[in-house]
Amino acid sequence: MTPPPPSAVTLGIDVGGTKILGVALDAEGRTLAEARRPSVHPGATATGHPAASYALIEAMAVVAEELEAMLGAGGADAPGSAGVGVPGLVDDTGRLRFAPNLPAGDDLDVADRLQERLGVRVVADNDATCAAVAEWVLGAAAGAEDALVVTLGTGIGGGVVAGGRVLRGAAGFAGEVGHVVVDPSGPRCTCGKRGCWERFASGSGLARLAREAAHAGRLGSVVHLAGDDPDAVRGEHVTEAASGGDAEAQAVLDELGWWIAVGLSNLALILDPEVIVVGGGMIEAMPLVLPSVRQEFTSMLEGADRRPEIRIVTAALGEQAGAVGAALVARNDRRYGAELDKAGPAAPGERGSSTGHSS
Amino acid sequence: MTPPPPSAVTLGIDVGGTKILGVALDAEGRTLAEARRPSVHPGATATGHPAASYALIEAMAVVAEELEAMLGAGGADAPGSAGVGVPGLVDDTGRLRFAPNLPAGDDLDVADRLQERLGVRVVADNDATCAAVAEWVLGAAAGAEDALVVTLGTGIGGGVVAGGRVLRGAAGFAGEVGHVVVDPSGPRCTCGKRGCWERFASGSGLARLAREAAHAGRLGSVVHLAGDDPDAVRGEHVTEAASGGDAEAQAVLDELGWWIAVGLSNLALILDPEVIVVGGGMIEAMPLVLPSVRQEFTSMLEGADRRPEIRIVTAALGEQAGAVGAALVARNDRRYGAELDKAGPAAPGERGSSTGHSS
Repeated sequence: MTPPPPSAVTLGIDVGGTKILGVALDAEGRTLAEARRPSVHPGATATGHPAASYALIEAMAVVAEELEAMLGAGGADAPGSAGVGVPGLVDDTGRLRFAPNLPAGDDLDVADRLQERLGVRVVADNDATCAAVAEWVLGAAAGAEDALVVTLGTGIGGGVVAGGRVLRGAAGFAGEVGHVVVDPSGPRCTCGKRGCWERFASGSGLARLAREAAHAGRLGSVVHLAGDDPDAVRGEHVTEAASGGDAEAQAVLDELGWWIAVGLSNLALILDPEVIVVGGGMIEAMPLVLPSVRQEFTSMLEGADRRPEIRIVTAALGEQAGAVGAALVARNDRRYGAELDKAGPAAPGERGSSTGHSS
Repeated sequence: MTPPPPSAVTLGIDVGGTKILGVALDAEGRTLAEARRPSVHPGATATGHPAASYALIEAMAVVAEELEAMLGAGGADAPGSAGVGVPGLVDDTGRLRFAPNLPAGDDLDVADRLQERLGVRVVADNDATCAAVAEWVLGAAAGAEDALVVTLGTGIGGGVVAGGRVLRGAAGFAGEVGHVVVDPSGPRCTCGKRGCWERFASGSGLARLAREAAHAGRLGSVVHLAGDDPDAVRGEHVTEAASGGDAEAQAVLDELGWWIAVGLSNLALILDPEVIVVGGGMIEAMPLVLPSVRQEFTSMLEGADRRPEIRIVTAALGEQAGAVGAALVARNDRRYGAELDKAGPAAPGERGSSTGHSS
């Protein structure tokens, strides 16, 4: 398929569990428009029923059409292509092969269906890979040849840049870091295994650590924030108390930081990135967590004193990262990397010519 | 530096804990000569003392000179360069930055020192990365764009091929898979952490699992093979008994297989290889272990029934893999990968033109 001209506007749509966020990106990587709507009703997506997948595609299309209307009203070009980021295993054809966190999308040919619906070329990719591309091209990993981006939210997603290219793997499924087992006798995961990293180092992991501490009689002020019900304690209660100086709440965040560091140091041994970008829904808590992450990471990393420092930084693009990255991926037909810089059409907003990001 | 002409002979030297193995490779990847000698006396290598590092370099040089003499006697060309595989973190300049298993080599500029001693260009790299290159170019991963090679021996080493190139990482330290933590409350590792994968899934891990079983009153015939001393049980005793049909011994190997599968499925989630090659000192035991590895791997891998099969195979080059790979790495000045196929000199024995391997 012929690549769009460098001046084309591209849509990017990030499909999350609670909302669908879309952006329209111009050739320089600037956001021209943003639209959002709640994700399809959970009841409508609870099965792989054709109606549920129809509703999911329709919800994406509505966001895309809103963006197109905003572009038209602003006198901008019509989009030449659209990218979609979805949670799960997305193959090279844009089919969502496995989607434990988005049942309506399970085994759904997202790219083909949305392309048919919208009438523009559509490329689909894993949502965390999209976020990684965005952070690499326009965000906190700009300029890095080797980078790791992890999104800490309800679960954990990941995207890897290796040697100046996005690491794809044989089937396009690389970077599924959330289900790396870090404790085989740990709690049961939604994937069926025990002790996956995202059971400890995610938002749901923090809530679990906090409830355990609450039931052990600690976290008095956090439990109070949760209406005096230990079972109602959520991550936000912990960060709120820790922000106010509560030492017991900070201790739970330090424990979270330790688990984040376990996974990050494992990944650093395998991938040897120069920078690790931490984003996702938990990014607001990172100022309270990253100090312990950095300290434990250094103490866990084999030969840490003999290596160049591996920087651990927060994501720069915030909640737009997935949508912006989806647009960038679409513009490059998924094959984002150094070889395109040489052989393919110039990727607008590519590394090195990054112009910053206006949100 | 000007690459050697395609006809040049290259030396490859693999520095292990018990032996140094060298090969001379011709332009087609055939082994023209092989030499070996015991590794330097442990006492001489127990410290970072200059005399110990001198002895280590000297031992490599003696192997290289033996190979040169054999080449001369056979009328072959003199080698144009030499590669060295050493255990630990090797940076882009060929310095061994961190070598917990080879104290004499700790922070030693292996490439420069041996180059000065031999008078030919020398390139140094991690030993498991060398083995991975050899299996990728001439062995069990030939033709793969995405492959993972793990060497199971006393410890565990790793090398990764991603998108048709060796995954190097920012400092050249990628693929350090042995120290990935799979159980934070597990046994203490030589690296200082707890529960590293190589504490469970290596030769020393098998011995530990077997001694635990022996002390629990199981493994009667295995203990008998070890002179009726549970503390003397080694991995070889387990595989010998299991080969003879001993069910308790096979159960310990199945447990080993489970731990191997934990690490391999973790790595597969991150890297998404099309093939995993298992080699190293434990390769002889693999016929007894791989059936359980394959079964547990499939049951642990997220979305296994929605993915292309990831083959798990044994290494093809046996004990020569590290030395052969060191020669291949030297020929390409470490930057082994697809971009050399396009831009650089044709790598003899490169993927696609593999001519098989004569040992």
